[in-house]
Amino acid sequence: MSLQIIPVRISKDIVPGDDLIELLLETRTGRGLKEGDILVFTQKIISKQEGRKVNLSKIKPTLLATGIANAFAKDPRIIQLILDETKRIIRMKNGIIISETHHGLVCANAGIDESNIESGFATLLPKDADTSAQKLRRRIKTRTGKNVAVIISDTFGRPFREGQTDTAIGVSGISSIIDYVGKRDNFNRILRVTAIAIADELCSASELVRGKTLRTPIAIIRNYQFDKKNSTSKVLLRAKSLDLFR
Amino acid sequence: MSLQIIPVRISKDIVPGDDLIELLLETRTGRGLKEGDILVFTQKIISKQEGRKVNLSKIKPTLLATGIANAFAKDPRIIQLILDETKRIIRMKNGIIISETHHGLVCANAGIDESNIESGFATLLPKDADTSAQKLRRRIKTRTGKNVAVIISDTFGRPFREGQTDTAIGVSGISSIIDYVGKRDNFNRILRVTAIAIADELCSASELVRGKTLRTPIAIIRNYQFDKKNSTSKVLLRAKSLDLFR
Repeated sequence: MSLQIIPVRISKDIVPGDDLIELLLETRTGRGLKEGDILVFTQKIISKQEGRKVNLSKIKPTLLATGIANAFAKDPRIIQLILDETKRIIRMKNGIIISETHHGLVCANAGIDESNIESGFATLLPKDADTSAQKLRRRIKTRTGKNVAVIISDTFGRPFREGQTDTAIGVSGISSIIDYVGKRDNFNRILRVTAIAIADELCSASELVRGKTLRTPIAIIRNYQFDKKNSTSKVLLRAKSLDLFR
Repeated sequence: MSLQIIPVRISKDIVPGDDLIELLLETRTGRGLKEGDILVFTQKIISKQEGRKVNLSKIKPTLLATGIANAFAKDPRIIQLILDETKRIIRMKNGIIISETHHGLVCANAGIDESNIESGFATLLPKDADTSAQKLRRRIKTRTGKNVAVIISDTFGRPFREGQTDTAIGVSGISSIIDYVGKRDNFNRILRVTAIAIADELCSASELVRGKTLRTPIAIIRNYQFDKKNSTSKVLLRAKSLDLFR
């Protein structure tokens, strides 16, 4: 059976307190939601709905932030926000800051983003995107009676390769990884190392119908069979002790 | 319009000289191929079709390969193959070898793989997967009159995150990256840094219908609008000089 990836257009600019599920269910695609669908939400609308938007005029950069900003020709207030959201700086070079956030995500600028928001503001990542995903999933169950999975997706760069891809930062109702270890291949040989990060692949798939300049903050993925056990995005985070690049 | 991802099952074990396009067109899904479809082929069937399969009993490991194999508790013949395919070792630790291949790909074991092949053999990556993709695309045009794009996909790990995802190693008939630099967002602000590696995202999407133990070496992606300019996988390879992790 073929997999379907369906864009959901929502033109409203999201503000704190908006009910994302009501907005979803006002759309024709949203009303067509089916049992077992996977909904992928962009980080941006979750951050906006949760009030994770910062007025830069209220940020007072420290001397450290000002120093880095000066060396990197960046806004010291943005650097201050990055430092606030960072557990550990992984790389800082060529005007790029790669940090490990308090959540354990490794990404540029600790996920601070000034795109798709009015001038003078920036968005932070959701505080706990697994919980955000869980709330949305439960709200869908309450409103429609349907069991779905919810993933929250953000666009990250990566080492070695040009271009960014979408990645899961919050997961609920679906196992993030399929582990093939111990399973047998077509030649009856034990597969030893393959574990697939399907939550990340689902986010990348959803990005394809979204684009960056369209108002398509949600995608519905249909006809994907998935496991519901231990749903969390945390299993996608490699521990520093196991990482060859930290 | 919703994106469709359609699995193509081919149960034959591919050998050198097999006509992959004939095998595709023998399937019902293959016969339904449409103008503008994107076909994603797994690296494994391309390597097999191109004879990139090595009989391990014919490999004579050097002292270096034997030494590494001894330290890592691995087969010295596999280590020898990895060294032969490697331009530069990026990391060698915890029994894991991350190398930059002669193609410029950064991946574990230089892409040498013993899964889904009979015991005593291993597959190497295609010599030039862009050319492999181009040949398949042209053959489809000749046989069906249809213009499609072809991507060759492999399953790679990545730093910072657990689980593997599918990644493009060969591309023909589609631009690998969509560059949004200079475009405007919904607030009329110039998007400064976003370039999306859609070829990688298409591979990840195709992996979702494939699984690792099923005989589904091809996926068809339908209803994706794409640009055809400068189609190559090379633009996905970050230059070492720009890479913060090499």
